[in-house]
Amino acid sequence: MSDSIHKRKSEHIEITLNEKVTGDHISTGFEKVSFIHNALPEIDFSEISLKTNFLDHTLKTPFLISSMTGGAALAESINRHLAEAAEQRGWTLALGSTRALIESKDHRSSFQVRKYAPNVPIITNLGAVQLNYGFGIEECQQIIEITDANMLVLHLNSIQEVIQQEGNTNFKSLLGKIEKLCQKLNVPVGVKEVGWGIDGMTAKKLTDVGIAFIDVAGAGGTSWSQVEKFRAKDKVKAEAAEAFSEWGIPTAECVISVRKQIEKQPIVASGGMRTGLDAAKAIAIGADMIGFGRSILKEATQSTEDVMRVMETRELELQMAMFGIGCSSLEELKQTDRVKL
Amino acid sequence: MSDSIHKRKSEHIEITLNEKVTGDHISTGFEKVSFIHNALPEIDFSEISLKTNFLDHTLKTPFLISSMTGGAALAESINRHLAEAAEQRGWTLALGSTRALIESKDHRSSFQVRKYAPNVPIITNLGAVQLNYGFGIEECQQIIEITDANMLVLHLNSIQEVIQQEGNTNFKSLLGKIEKLCQKLNVPVGVKEVGWGIDGMTAKKLTDVGIAFIDVAGAGGTSWSQVEKFRAKDKVKAEAAEAFSEWGIPTAECVISVRKQIEKQPIVASGGMRTGLDAAKAIAIGADMIGFGRSILKEATQSTEDVMRVMETRELELQMAMFGIGCSSLEELKQTDRVKL
Amino acid sequence: MSDSIHKRKSEHIEITLNEKVTGDHISTGFEKVSFIHNALPEIDFSEISLKTNFLDHTLKTPFLISSMTGGAALAESINRHLAEAAEQRGWTLALGSTRALIESKDHRSSFQVRKYAPNVPIITNLGAVQLNYGFGIEECQQIIEITDANMLVLHLNSIQEVIQQEGNTNFKSLLGKIEKLCQKLNVPVGVKEVGWGIDGMTAKKLTDVGIAFIDVAGAGGTSWSQVEKFRAKDKVKAEAAEAFSEWGIPTAECVISVRKQIEKQPIVASGGMRTGLDAAKAIAIGADMIGFGRSILKEATQSTEDVMRVMETRELELQMAMFGIGCSSLEELKQTDRVKL
Amino acid sequence: MSDSIHKRKSEHIEITLNEKVTGDHISTGFEKVSFIHNALPEIDFSEISLKTNFLDHTLKTPFLISSMTGGAALAESINRHLAEAAEQRGWTLALGSTRALIESKDHRSSFQVRKYAPNVPIITNLGAVQLNYGFGIEECQQIIEITDANMLVLHLNSIQEVIQQEGNTNFKSLLGKIEKLCQKLNVPVGVKEVGWGIDGMTAKKLTDVGIAFIDVAGAGGTSWSQVEKFRAKDKVKAEAAEAFSEWGIPTAECVISVRKQIEKQPIVASGGMRTGLDAAKAIAIGADMIGFGRSILKEATQSTEDVMRVMETRELELQMAMFGIGCSSLEELKQTDRVKL
Ligand SMILES: Cc1cc2nc3c(=O)[nH]c(=O)nc-3n(C[C@H](O)[C@H](O)[C@H](O)COP(=O)(O)O)c2cc1C
Ligand SMILES: Cc1cc2nc3c(=O)[nH]c(=O)nc-3n(C[C@H](O)[C@H](O)[C@H](O)COP(=O)(O)O)c2cc1C
Ligand SMILES: Cc1cc2nc3c(=O)[nH]c(=O)nc-3n(C[C@H](O)[C@H](O)[C@H](O)COP(=O)(O)O)c2cc1C
Ligand SMILES: Cc1cc2nc3c(=O)[nH]c(=O)nc-3n(C[C@H](O)[C@H](O)[C@H](O)COP(=O)(O)O)c2cc1C
Repeated sequence: MSDSIHKRKSEHIEITLNEKVTGDHISTGFEKVSFIHNALPEIDFSEISLKTNFLDHTLKTPFLISSMTGGAALAESINRHLAEAAEQRGWTLALGSTRALIESKDHRSSFQVRKYAPNVPIITNLGAVQLNYGFGIEECQQIIEITDANMLVLHLNSIQEVIQQEGNTNFKSLLGKIEKLCQKLNVPVGVKEVGWGIDGMTAKKLTDVGIAFIDVAGAGGTSWSQVEKFRAKDKVKAEAAEAFSEWGIPTAECVISVRKQIEKQPIVASGGMRTGLDAAKAIAIGADMIGFGRSILKEATQSTEDVMRVMETRELELQMAMFGIGCSSLEELKQTDRVKL
Repeated sequence: MSDSIHKRKSEHIEITLNEKVTGDHISTGFEKVSFIHNALPEIDFSEISLKTNFLDHTLKTPFLISSMTGGAALAESINRHLAEAAEQRGWTLALGSTRALIESKDHRSSFQVRKYAPNVPIITNLGAVQLNYGFGIEECQQIIEITDANMLVLHLNSIQEVIQQEGNTNFKSLLGKIEKLCQKLNVPVGVKEVGWGIDGMTAKKLTDVGIAFIDVAGAGGTSWSQVEKFRAKDKVKAEAAEAFSEWGIPTAECVISVRKQIEKQPIVASGGMRTGLDAAKAIAIGADMIGFGRSILKEATQSTEDVMRVMETRELELQMAMFGIGCSSLEELKQTDRVKL
Repeated sequence: MSDSIHKRKSEHIEITLNEKVTGDHISTGFEKVSFIHNALPEIDFSEISLKTNFLDHTLKTPFLISSMTGGAALAESINRHLAEAAEQRGWTLALGSTRALIESKDHRSSFQVRKYAPNVPIITNLGAVQLNYGFGIEECQQIIEITDANMLVLHLNSIQEVIQQEGNTNFKSLLGKIEKLCQKLNVPVGVKEVGWGIDGMTAKKLTDVGIAFIDVAGAGGTSWSQVEKFRAKDKVKAEAAEAFSEWGIPTAECVISVRKQIEKQPIVASGGMRTGLDAAKAIAIGADMIGFGRSILKEATQSTEDVMRVMETRELELQMAMFGIGCSSLEELKQTDRVKL
Repeated sequence: MSDSIHKRKSEHIEITLNEKVTGDHISTGFEKVSFIHNALPEIDFSEISLKTNFLDHTLKTPFLISSMTGGAALAESINRHLAEAAEQRGWTLALGSTRALIESKDHRSSFQVRKYAPNVPIITNLGAVQLNYGFGIEECQQIIEITDANMLVLHLNSIQEVIQQEGNTNFKSLLGKIEKLCQKLNVPVGVKEVGWGIDGMTAKKLTDVGIAFIDVAGAGGTSWSQVEKFRAKDKVKAEAAEAFSEWGIPTAECVISVRKQIEKQPIVASGGMRTGLDAAKAIAIGADMIGFGRSILKEATQSTEDVMRVMETRELELQMAMFGIGCSSLEELKQTDRVKL
C-alpha cells in the first residue's frame, strides 16, 4: 500500500514538472488586482521588513512552501533542499502527505527533515478523508511525532479522489471528526485544499469547530484534475477529468471570501502564486501567509541554492511592491488603500 | 418525396460529422456559469443519485438523446446503437423526424427501435410546420403508433426551412393547430427548436395551449443555417445562411428565460451541450433534462459500446460536479446556491 | 481641375478595392446588437414585405447604394451596373460627387444614369464644403438637372479634406449656407458623412435648418483616413492619417443617437453595413433606409447581374431576420421588442 | 562616479532603442478614451491654433520633449538635435538628469544646449532622491545655471533605484526637502515620475509644498523595470524586475486623478504618448502639456530634420483631432463635451 503511495507521488512530481497541468479558462484572479503606485513613498527601502507572526511563531517572512513531497528517493532530496533553504531564509515548510508513514516504515527518513530545518515551523500533512478510512487521533499524533512537526494541515481534495484509481471518496461526516481532532491534538490543525479553493462559508464551518488556520489553495495554478488525467487508465475518467479543467474558485476570490467570514485565524493564500507581487496583492486583500507549490518544484529537484535563489526573488518582489506603495511593514500592507479590485 | 427526405437526412449526418457547423461569435453561455466549489462536501460520492422523473416516467438519468436520425441505411444502424445504449444506461431517446413514415413505407423498420429499448421513453418527432402541410391528428397518431413512442415532440425550425430548397415556410396559425393536437393526442406533446432556442414568452404561449414540455435547443452548438449552407445550391441562399451563423438564443439564456415563465412543465436543456458539467450548470439554473445531439453522433455511427462510453462519461461528469458542490440528488442540485452567473 | 477629380476618383476605387481600408479597433457596433429569436413566428415567409416609403417615394426595398462613383471610364460602367440593378430590384441610387460636372463637360455622360434607372430615386451628391468654394444654389440646381436627380445629398468629410493634397478645409459657416440651399432648391436635401458618422446633436442642427434626411455614414466600414493614407505623398500626412484609423462614431451608435434627436426625418444607416441582418438590426434601432458602399463595389465593377445577386442576398437576409423574429413588415420591425443592445 | 553615470545613460539609450521595454498587460488607457466626431465643425482648419501658456511662458505648442539624455558623446548629438528642433517648432525641452554635472566637469558641454534653443523653455532634471544623497539647494542652483534652465524638474523613480546596481533607495523625508527647494530656488520646480505615474493624492501633497507643475509620466510606455532588467547582472534582480512589467498607473488615469486634486498647477501628460490624437485626448481629460520620450528617441539619434518631421506629425494629428470635434483652440479642447471615457 505505502509502495503504491510512493509510486503515485513520483508520478505526480514527474507529471507536474513536465506536463501542462494548469486549468483552462481559469486564473488566480490576481491579474485583476492592481496597486496604485505611490511615487513618493517616503520610506527607506532597506528598512522594509517582512517579519510576521504565524500563530505562535515569529517568522522572518510570510512565505510557506506548500505541501508537495512525501517519501521515496527523489522526494528525499527534494525535501532536503526545501528544508535547508526554508531554514536559511525563514520560510515555513509544509510537508506532503505523511500517510505513508503509518502504513509502512520504509522511507521514513525522507520525511524527517527537522534536522535540516531546526528553527522554522514544519507542518505535517494528511488527507482529511483518511479520517473516514482508519485514521484517527492516534495516527495523527504519530505522524506529528515522527516528523517533529509544529502543526498538522488536513487537505481536502474531493474531485481528485474521484479520478484517482485508488480514490477514497466517502467525504461524509468529516466535520465532526475534524472537530474531535482539533480538541485532542496538542498542535494546531489547519485545513487546505489542493487547487480548487476554500470559500468563506466552508472556512467558517471549519474554524467554528476549532481549525487554527485556512490555506485556501485556490484555482489558477496546478489543477489536480489535469494532473490525474495523465495518470488515469480509465478513458471515461480521463475524459471527465478534462471537463474539470475549468473547475475551482480563483485564489484571489477565496482570500476575499474567507476573510469576510473569519477574523482571527490566519489565512494562507496559495494556488498558482507566482511572484512576490502576487503575494503582496494577496496580503493587501486579506491573506497572512503565502504558499508556493509547483512554481518552486523544479528548483527543489536541483539544489538548496537554487531554491534559495527563488526564495530571495520572491522576497525582493514583495519588498519592491511594498516600496512601490510606501509600506514598510506587512501590517501597513494589510491596511493599504492603494489596492484596486 | 420520402426518398428525398432520406437523402437529405444522410447529407445532414455527413455534413454535421465532417464540416464546421457551429455558429460564429455565439456560444451556449454556459462558459459564463460557474460553480462555487465546496471543499467539504460531507457526502459519499457513491451515494450520489441521478434518478429523476420526466412527466410520468421514472428515469435513471436526466439525459436525453436529441432527435437526430430518421430512416435509411446509415440511420438504421445509428438508431440501433443509440437505442441499445439508451436502454442500458437509462437515457431517454428522441427520434429524428418521422415524417417520412407517413409519406412512404420504405425504411419503416429503421424507425422501429422499441425492440432495442423496451424500457426507456421514446419520443417521436415531427416538424410543427407540417401541420400546415397536410399533417393532422391522424398522421401524428400513426407515427406514434409505428414508433411505439411515449411522447411526440414538434420541432420549430423557421430559418432552416427558408434555406432548404424543399423548405416549408408557411408558419402561420400553428399555435391553434398545436392546441388541438395536445387536446386530441393520447400522449404528451412537447416542442423543441433545432438550435436557435425558445425564449420564455414563446414557451409560455406553448404551455398555455397544452404543451407538456419545452426542449429549448438553443444556440451555441449545431447551427442549422451553417449545415444548410453546405447543401444550398443557390448562391444567394448559401451566402444568406452564412450571415445567420451568429443567430439564436444561447442555450443557458433560454433555460433561464423559460424557467421564469413556466413552473410546472419540465424543461430540456439542449443545443451545444458538451459535458456533464454543462449539464450540472443547466440543471442548477432551471433545467430538468439534458439533451445531447451532434456531440454523440460520431459514436452513434460506430457502436453501441462507443455510445455507452460517452454516456458513462457524461454521467460521471455530472456526478463529479454534484460532488464538487456537495449535492447528492438532482433535487438538491436544482436548489443549490453554489452557482454563479 | 475636373481631370484631377476624375483621377482621384479612380485612385479611390483602386485603393478601396485592393487595400486594407477599414479602421483599427473600431467597428459598426452591430455585433453588439442581437435579436431574440422567435421560434414560433406565426407568419408566412412568402408574405414578408420590404415595402417602404422614403420621403415622397414608395419603394420596393429600404436599400440604397451609397454615393461612390463619379465620372471617367471605369466609373461609367460602374454607374451603369449599379443603376440597372437598382432599377430592377427597387433600390435607391446615390451618385458619387457630381462636382466635376460643373468644372468641365467631359465625362458628363457617365453621371447620366437616369436612362438605366427610370423608376427609382436618384440622389445627386456634393461636398458640403464646396459651398465655401464657389458652389451655390445655381450650381446645385445644375447638377440636379444634369443627373435628373430626385434629391441632393451633401457630404461632410472634414478629416478627409485635411489629408487630401487638394483638400478644402474651410468648414466655417456651412450651416447657414445649407439652410439657404434647403429653402431655395426644389428637391429635398439630405446630409451624409463618409464614414466617421453623424451624431444626434449635429443631426438636430441640420434638420432644424431644413435638411430632409440624415445618412449617418458611420465608422466601422471604409475609413477615409486609411484610404487617403495610401494616396498621401507627404510623409507627415500619411503618418497622421494612420493615427486616425480609430476615429469616428460607430454606425449603430449614430443611428441610436440621431433617432433620439429627430423624429420626422428619415435616417439612412450606412457605413460598414455588410448583411441584411445588419440592416434588420439598424431598422430595429431606428433607421429607415440602409446604405451599402464599398461592400457592393467589386460586383459593380463586374456586371449588373453580379450587383443584382448581392442585392437579392441582402434582401433575403433582411427577410430571414424578420421571419426569425416574426415581423412581416418593416413597420413591425421598427416596433419590435425582440432586439437587444 | 560621473563616468558610471554616463555609461549607464548610454546603456539606457541602447536598450530603449533596441529591446522590448514596454510593460505587459498594461497600457496608457488612452485606447479607452474616444472622441465623438463632429461632422459639422463650423471652423476653418487653417485657423486652428496650438498656442498655450506653460507657467510664465507663451508657447507655440503644448508639446514637451521628456527628459532623456545626459552627458557623453552620443548624448551630445541627441541633445543638439532635440534642442534645435524644439527651437524651430516651439517645443519645450526637458533635459535628462544633470546630476553628472556636479560630480565631474567632463561632458559638461553636452548639457549646454541653450545655444541651440535660445527661445524655448529648458527644464533641467535631477532625481528627487539625490536630496538624500548630498544634493541641496546649492547643487540645484549650479545645474540650473550651467544648463541655463528656466525650470527644474525632480524625478521620482523608486522601483528603478531598487533594481539598479548603483541604486539610491532611501526615499525618506523627501517631501520636506522638496518644500525647502521650492522656497529657495529662483525658478519653478516641477516633479515627474519615469513611467509608473503620479496619482492625485501624491500630486496634492507636492503642490501643497510648492511644486509648480506635475508631469505624471504614467504607465503604458517605457517601463523602467523592463529597461533595468536588461542591465541587471544579479539574476534575482532581473527576475524580480520582470514581475514588475505590469506595474504602474496608466497615464490617462493619472491625468484624471491629478486633475481632480489640483486646479491651478499645469499637468504634463507623458508616459507612452504616441500620437497627437493621444495628446488631444489627454488635454480633453485635463492635461495642459504633453510629453514624448522614447517615441522620439530614434529620430533624435539621426538628425534635427527627422525630429522636426515627427514634431510636425504630432502637431498635425492634434490639429486634426481638434478639427474633428470642432475646436479651434486648446482652451476649447479643454472644455469639450465630445470626449467619452
Ligand atoms: C508534486 C505535488 C505534490 C503534491 N502533494 C500534495 C500532498 O501530498 N498534500 C497536499 O495537501 N497537497 C499536495 N499538493 C498540492 C499543493 O500543496 C498545492 O495546494 C497545489 O499544488 C496548488 O498550489 P500551486 O498552484 O502553487 O502548485 C501537491 C502538489 C504538487 C505539485
Ligand atoms: C444529424 C442531425 C439530424 C437532426 N435531425 C433532426 C430532426 O429530424 N428533428 C429535430 O427536431 N431535430 C433534428 N436535429 C437537431 C437536434 O435535435 C438538436 O436540436 C440540434 O442539433 C442542437 O443540438 P446539438 O448542438 O447538441 O447538436 C438534428 C441534428 C443533427 C446533428
Ligand atoms: C470608391 C468610393 C468612392 C466614394 N465617393 C464618395 C463620394 O463621391 N461622395 C460621398 O459622399 N461619399 C463617397 N464615398 C463614401 C461612401 O458613400 C460611404 O459613405 C462610405 O464609403 C462608408 O460606407 P461603406 O463602409 O459601406 O463603404 C465613396 C466611397 C467609396 C468606397
Ligand atoms: C533613454 C531614456 C533616458 C531617460 N532618462 C531620464 C532621466 O535622466 N531623467 C528622467 O526624469 N527621466 C528619464 N527618462 C524617462 C522619461 O523622461 C519618461 O518619463 C519615460 O520614458 C516615459 O515616457 P515614454 O513612455 O514617452 O518614454 C528617460 C527615458 C529614456 C527613454
